[in-house]
Amino acid sequence: MRAALCPGSFDPVTNGHLDVIERATALFDRVYVTVFVHGGKQALFTPAERVEMLREATSHLPNVVVDVTTGLLVDYARAHGIGVVLRGLRAVSDFEYEFAMAEMNKRLYGELETLFMMARPEHSYLSSTLVKEVARWGGDVSAFVPPSVERGLKRQFGH
Amino acid sequence: MRAALCPGSFDPVTNGHLDVIERATALFDRVYVTVFVHGGKQALFTPAERVEMLREATSHLPNVVVDVTTGLLVDYARAHGIGVVLRGLRAVSDFEYEFAMAEMNKRLYGELETLFMMARPEHSYLSSTLVKEVARWGGDVSAFVPPSVERGLKRQFGH
Amino acid sequence: MRAALCPGSFDPVTNGHLDVIERATALFDRVYVTVFVHGGKQALFTPAERVEMLREATSHLPNVVVDVTTGLLVDYARAHGIGVVLRGLRAVSDFEYEFAMAEMNKRLYGELETLFMMARPEHSYLSSTLVKEVARWGGDVSAFVPPSVERGLKRQFGH
Amino acid sequence: MRAALCPGSFDPVTNGHLDVIERATALFDRVYVTVFVHGGKQALFTPAERVEMLREATSHLPNVVVDVTTGLLVDYARAHGIGVVLRGLRAVSDFEYEFAMAEMNKRLYGELETLFMMARPEHSYLSSTLVKEVARWGGDVSAFVPPSVERGLKRQFGH
Amino acid sequence: MRAALCPGSFDPVTNGHLDVIERATALFDRVYVTVFVHGGKQALFTPAERVEMLREATSHLPNVVVDVTTGLLVDYARAHGIGVVLRGLRAVSDFEYEFAMAEMNKRLYGELETLFMMARPEHSYLSSTLVKEVARWGGDVSAFVPPSVERGLKRQFGH
Amino acid sequence: MRAALCPGSFDPVTNGHLDVIERATALFDRVYVTVFVHGGKQALFTPAERVEMLREATSHLPNVVVDVTTGLLVDYARAHGIGVVLRGLRAVSDFEYEFAMAEMNKRLYGELETLFMMARPEHSYLSSTLVKEVARWGGDVSAFVPPSVERGLKRQFGH
Repeated sequence: MRAALCPGSFDPVTNGHLDVIERATALFDRVYVTVFVHGGKQALFTPAERVEMLREATSHLPNVVVDVTTGLLVDYARAHGIGVVLRGLRAVSDFEYEFAMAEMNKRLYGELETLFMMARPEHSYLSSTLVKEVARWGGDVSAFVPPSVERGLKRQFGH
Repeated sequence: MRAALCPGSFDPVTNGHLDVIERATALFDRVYVTVFVHGGKQALFTPAERVEMLREATSHLPNVVVDVTTGLLVDYARAHGIGVVLRGLRAVSDFEYEFAMAEMNKRLYGELETLFMMARPEHSYLSSTLVKEVARWGGDVSAFVPPSVERGLKRQFGH
Repeated sequence: MRAALCPGSFDPVTNGHLDVIERATALFDRVYVTVFVHGGKQALFTPAERVEMLREATSHLPNVVVDVTTGLLVDYARAHGIGVVLRGLRAVSDFEYEFAMAEMNKRLYGELETLFMMARPEHSYLSSTLVKEVARWGGDVSAFVPPSVERGLKRQFGH
Repeated sequence: MRAALCPGSFDPVTNGHLDVIERATALFDRVYVTVFVHGGKQALFTPAERVEMLREATSHLPNVVVDVTTGLLVDYARAHGIGVVLRGLRAVSDFEYEFAMAEMNKRLYGELETLFMMARPEHSYLSSTLVKEVARWGGDVSAFVPPSVERGLKRQFGH
Repeated sequence: MRAALCPGSFDPVTNGHLDVIERATALFDRVYVTVFVHGGKQALFTPAERVEMLREATSHLPNVVVDVTTGLLVDYARAHGIGVVLRGLRAVSDFEYEFAMAEMNKRLYGELETLFMMARPEHSYLSSTLVKEVARWGGDVSAFVPPSVERGLKRQFGH
Repeated sequence: MRAALCPGSFDPVTNGHLDVIERATALFDRVYVTVFVHGGKQALFTPAERVEMLREATSHLPNVVVDVTTGLLVDYARAHGIGVVLRGLRAVSDFEYEFAMAEMNKRLYGELETLFMMARPEHSYLSSTLVKEVARWGGDVSAFVPPSVERGLKRQFGH
């Protein structure tokens, strides 16, 4: 059985992430969508909220496992028998960071391959940060995120 | 009447910003130079100080309106009947962020166009951040900013 | 009256070019869409064919002037009283070439400004070269070019 | 059975290509390594020579099929029941061309996914063009290409 | 006597930094490896610890001077009679920041040249930030940093 | 004695090249400015003309040696006891090609270091290709090239 890992902070998940996840489910037997929690980073949603929003947004995809963890990606992959990390690329600046991460992970765990998918053009401008900025000022984000996230953003910003 | 918006945090305005603003005044009937205040970002100057420095530095340009606001750029543009956002580009990393912003704004407000000007080469290395760093340690910034900003930086850093 | 120039080799025009041209007509009183013919470059269509395809594809835009020329862009702009060159940007590699051209043109003709528009994401992957490659092997290009160009490509490649 | 396609002109294959091909064989049941022949491009080796060098260099990989074709990649993929194109990325400029190709192919054949692997750093500077340039002047290329290619380059350049 | 400056925050020094420093010692009579301390940035190691780790890691290089300072790079260079700043480049995003810094420094101190070396590919993915992230979660960093830093990271993170 | 090599096709030399050469003469005891002639590339000027223009343009720099050669850069460097290649960088796309060349040369000749200088902003848009294009159509290139090249371009294009 071939398993792939879609890691992220998913604070919150956007339609861009979901597009990559859906395309991944057609290529792999099981797709782990895993929230990596890092102490240093200030998040808008709690890990539990992020997992809940991911679960609702991927409930139509039977081979998706939503999970949450902390620590090194390579340790998680090893523990779950995952041989492939799948990442979406939107832009040149993604490319450089992703290249460094992929190489570092390969050196820490030689059997792990990182594969990349280009974001579809209609999602290439989307990021969690930009979506939060629009929602903070009451802008309409329904075209950018799934309904569970739209509701969560409204709760957070009181609109 | 054609109006263009030059948005920014202008903390503080540099000669690079001023070059774009001056070139804009030759192309549009009215140019709004508007300080967007975002809670999260730590600024050196208060919004009122930034507006004051911009006013002094653009006083020779009759069709410039200096303003300050908070909230979404698209809401401001709609409220003021502005159809064009004008942005200066210095570098490839500017390009990607600006592309995402322009597309997001277009999706939020379809009639708004974002136009870009390349910074003149003699300003291509200038940024508010670099100027503040030089001024912090007592370096001479008179070639990089207008006199109002040079005085403001001296006040801030006590040189 | 404000005139803008959309220069190109247009060999052939794509839906990406047309999107920039249409958006330009809303911002300027007159938009020159001008085929620049350069001896060195091997073209698929003759200049006359390229003009004809552009005319048909822009016939619904009353303030567009389709033209063909040879020589320096700055000489053409000066002769036609054009103060703005408008270019579409798709990618980082566009950015660098365009920056060099814009600066060179500014040095040759100080009153000429080059403005840029980001291609809409749904056109960001389109180029004349890629379209010709697909058409050469009989691929369906109807989603990428206007009908006049689709017919022209079929004539050229005999499909 | 999952099949992936590693397309290229392979004029000639380098150790960078081979690294991607080997890593692909661990992820897919069958890997097509297919020489795409395009009339316009001046090649150093004939298609038959390129296939021969690829066959020798991949003879230790039982699930590799070396092939040669002409025409559109999407037509080849459809005809062979291939759902994944696998490409190596070395640099930012690769990224942009590959993004355009991947999106174009997705629009021509919706079921085809393009996945990318980053080149290992020790191959990131390698290209067929650079290798040919070194070999042309008698430089030692044994660290950059498999033995079959080294012999081929010596035959071509008479060293 | 020709002196070069390798400036950085070195929080902590990595094998990538050390490779640049070693190559510099073959080109210049004296190489200053100087920790620049900037108030704003949250560091893992104290300046004294960073100097100590650098001293141990460069003890085999007789023409290296390890130092620590605060303030503007140009003031330090002038005070020490240094005419060359030497920087390692890993990626495109390094390039842009470095270009801006080099030009700013040239304008502040006309006799100062900034020279760049490309990182060797086997270090191109390394950064202090990534190394700290791996060490924080107990990953093995012995291939990425000198022994003095490995010990320091273990002390910090209590593994 | 420290010698550096400034290699190029110099077809023709521009003020951007000359700026790098002049700055190099302040850092190295001897600077080789060497025209590398490659059969494949279509040049405007003969190697002898390019050398002649370089000689006139660098006659005020006593430690410059103008030369012409064919073959591999590493063979030339070895034969002349040159330990440093010095290259000017203008843009991100330069960066990638230069990175690949520098690494390839390092692998072919381990003692050779490639150092880079950023082009001054006022030359960052300049290239031999752009200058030839302007001159071809009778544009004024006196601000971009030395007098010897301006005369040469006029002879070539008959203006």
